[in-house]
This record gives sequence, C-alpha cells and structure tokens, in this order.
Amino acid sequence: MPHVLQVDFNLQGPFGNEMAEAFSDLAKSINEEEGFIWKIWTESPETNEAGGIYIFETKETAEKYFKMHAKRLAGFGITDVNTKIFAINSKLTEITKGPVK
Amino acid sequence: MPHVLQVDFNLQGPFGNEMAEAFSDLAKSINEEEGFIWKIWTESPETNEAGGIYIFETKETAEKYFKMHAKRLAGFGITDVNTKIFAINSKLTEITKGPVK
Repeated sequence: MPHVLQVDFNLQGPFGNEMAEAFSDLAKSINEEEGFIWKIWTESPETNEAGGIYIFETKETAEKYFKMHAKRLAGFGITDVNTKIFAINSKLTEITKGPVK
Repeated sequence: MPHVLQVDFNLQGPFGNEMAEAFSDLAKSINEEEGFIWKIWTESPETNEAGGIYIFETKETAEKYFKMHAKRLAGFGITDVNTKIFAINSKLTEITKGPVK
C-alpha cells in the first residue's frame, strides 16, 4: 500500500537552478531506490527551508529510505529534520485527483 | 508557479473507509477551490494523525485555502495544526517523476 514520506529541514541554500545543478545526480539515484514511486522537491528560500514529498510502494520502503536519507543529510550537516510517514486514504485521494502512482 | 501545501494534525479518527464516508462531500468541494490542482489525503491510525499534501497553482491560492481550512479544522476542534507551504524545484522534480500538474 503506497505511503507518503514528508521531509523538511532548514537549509541556507542553494535553491532554484543552483540546487538543481548540485543535486541532479542525487535525484537520478533516488529513482533507483527500493519502492520509490516519485518525489516532489520542495524549497523555500524566504524561510531557508527545503525538503521533499515522496511516494513509496510500502511503509517499510519509505522507512528504509528515510533512515538512509537522514544519515546523508547529517553528512551535509543537516540534523534537525522534520519527517512523517503516512498511509493514504485512497477513496478520498481519488476524488481530489491525487496522483499516487 | 505551483506550490505544495503540507498539513497534518492529531486526529482520533475516523480513518480509512469511515473517514472516506465522512468526508467525501468535503473532498468534492475541495476540487472547486481557487487554484486547486490535487490533494493526497494522509492518515496514520497508529499515531492518531491525519492531513493532506496539496498542490495549488500559486503560493497565494495555497495560503488562502489554508486560512479557510484552518478555520474549518478549528470547527472540528482541531487547532494544533502543522503546516508548511513550499515552492517546487521543477528541474529536480522532473527527474524524480513528481506529478505536479
């Protein structure tokens, strides 16, 4: 059953095109992660925050990815990370056109 | 420029099919909101949390929706709401197949 992983944290930058250049190889590698379906990359230069909304095929693959990702973020000096993993209410999500697959 | 609205809060229920029955009319009405593109309905019965991931056409329509939604949640007795609004890094999101439209 697909699950949402939401992640955000403080970031001084880069944002926008600079962020895209810095992380395009990382983005390609995320496509290869177990259970990965999609990720929307979020950013807020005004508040110095960034993060992502992901869909994984299962709760377990979302948890496994986040465990690895938290270590990677720590390697960038980012340790104060907000994260939640949620199941999806598929009937309501269908009504509101949520693209889970 | 599309923006993400992420919202979550504590909820004792209903979840699953009961939640879908309780909120299907509300879900239909959300489709009519200004700037609304899609919503994924999130739920976590294990931790008594629920919420949503939304895409709106602009930051302003996301903010306007959330202002109304916060009042609606308050009417349900839900006042301790976590929310963030983010821009989207479209180049990275394209690589990771994020369905923004």
